[in-house]
Amino acid sequence: MSDQPIVHELPVRVYYEDTDAGGVVYHASYIRFAERGRTEMLRDHGIVHAQMLKETGIGFVVAALKADYRQPAQLDDLLTVRSWIARIGGASMDMAQHIYRNNDLIAELTITLVCIDQNLKAVRLPANVRALAGAAP
Amino acid sequence: MSDQPIVHELPVRVYYEDTDAGGVVYHASYIRFAERGRTEMLRDHGIVHAQMLKETGIGFVVAALKADYRQPAQLDDLLTVRSWIARIGGASMDMAQHIYRNNDLIAELTITLVCIDQNLKAVRLPANVRALAGAAP
Amino acid sequence: MSDQPIVHELPVRVYYEDTDAGGVVYHASYIRFAERGRTEMLRDHGIVHAQMLKETGIGFVVAALKADYRQPAQLDDLLTVRSWIARIGGASMDMAQHIYRNNDLIAELTITLVCIDQNLKAVRLPANVRALAGAAP
Amino acid sequence: MSDQPIVHELPVRVYYEDTDAGGVVYHASYIRFAERGRTEMLRDHGIVHAQMLKETGIGFVVAALKADYRQPAQLDDLLTVRSWIARIGGASMDMAQHIYRNNDLIAELTITLVCIDQNLKAVRLPANVRALAGAAP
Repeated sequence: MSDQPIVHELPVRVYYEDTDAGGVVYHASYIRFAERGRTEMLRDHGIVHAQMLKETGIGFVVAALKADYRQPAQLDDLLTVRSWIARIGGASMDMAQHIYRNNDLIAELTITLVCIDQNLKAVRLPANVRALAGAAP
Repeated sequence: MSDQPIVHELPVRVYYEDTDAGGVVYHASYIRFAERGRTEMLRDHGIVHAQMLKETGIGFVVAALKADYRQPAQLDDLLTVRSWIARIGGASMDMAQHIYRNNDLIAELTITLVCIDQNLKAVRLPANVRALAGAAP
Repeated sequence: MSDQPIVHELPVRVYYEDTDAGGVVYHASYIRFAERGRTEMLRDHGIVHAQMLKETGIGFVVAALKADYRQPAQLDDLLTVRSWIARIGGASMDMAQHIYRNNDLIAELTITLVCIDQNLKAVRLPANVRALAGAAP
Repeated sequence: MSDQPIVHELPVRVYYEDTDAGGVVYHASYIRFAERGRTEMLRDHGIVHAQMLKETGIGFVVAALKADYRQPAQLDDLLTVRSWIARIGGASMDMAQHIYRNNDLIAELTITLVCIDQNLKAVRLPANVRALAGAAP
């Protein structure tokens, strides 16, 4: 096992649904793009939200987020969401998610996720998630 | 009981979230506005989605919709959603929802709703919904 | 030139952003999926919204839409949007867009698009769009 | 002029459009609610986005945001968005926006807004905005 976090890349196309009357991508749309990025990162490693919830009763909730907007993206842009686990704790982790258009950094997000069971109690992150962070299971 | 349907009006303000890079309201946003309109119409008559589901296991699903877009609405416009039951059947009804800016008709929607129970089986519309249509209970 | 319309397929994954508290895909989300489908169909044939608007001043607006919901889709489903031009007129066309999960039909949409210039005047559909319909240019 | 910031309150109802398959309000929906809150706060003091842009060429862009999620809100909840200017600089300001359900704190947001002109150059915040912060104009 590496001690480096795995970096995932997801291409995201900008459609009218993502833009606003300012002619650019609406600021909350990047938060939807980030959700897609980390969901696909987890799926690539066998972690599927609906299935995990059904089989183990465990899910992730967003506890906090930060976003810094560097440049506006626009209609028809092809963006890339780069995601990796920046910090991992017992029951929570910080996912770093940087959104690029080619080499231009568009937005930097950090999403704090907490792992909870069906009683909404924080529980230890599963081993397959810890492995993504390059952390001991 | 009247045999006329009750007409409900809900004011809706247009924010950046509702617009797109064409500078106008995004076409799917009107469908969200319509949901707000008919939800408040039902609430005004004591029918609250979350509560009805919990108490009776009954809910509404959208089975079909039609929208005709007449004129574009824009950022900061104050719109009015006018809603009434245009047709009522045993387990389904058509809700007419016209969206205005002052006297200008912006969009005309018809939403077909079906009343279902927790097994997703169509069930008879409750009496308090039938009353809104001016129909016999 | 064929007289058969070209059929385009776009895969669309369902994320939390697309679902609602009913546990299924929110009815307006399918309308966003359809926009993605027809945008990629046009892009595959060299028609890019932002570029067409800049170079020719011509754009498409949604004049009407119809949706029939057949079955609910759910979180993590992989859907396919099948799009083709079902009717082509001088300045307008109907795009048929059927959304599937494997062989299950989830939703059927018809979107009426009008081609307009910068003065919002209806103009003749460009030849490359007519070609997609299998129609004479 | 007071040296206390003005606090604005906007009621926001939760609809299906705002929720997700987790049965609660989707995390990005609070960011849309916050936009509504600060837009109405500004409107109450004569500052209307579309009009300001047209008359002075000046607009606000979101440069950064932070959100802490305290408790989940649910379908049909009636929330209140409390907004005030927490920090004011030359061309930028931080808007604090706390979202409550009765006395329960649901989410705390801080939105950093920058005032820009039509060349996307940062410009001094207008006097009527500075007044809202209880700051010297």
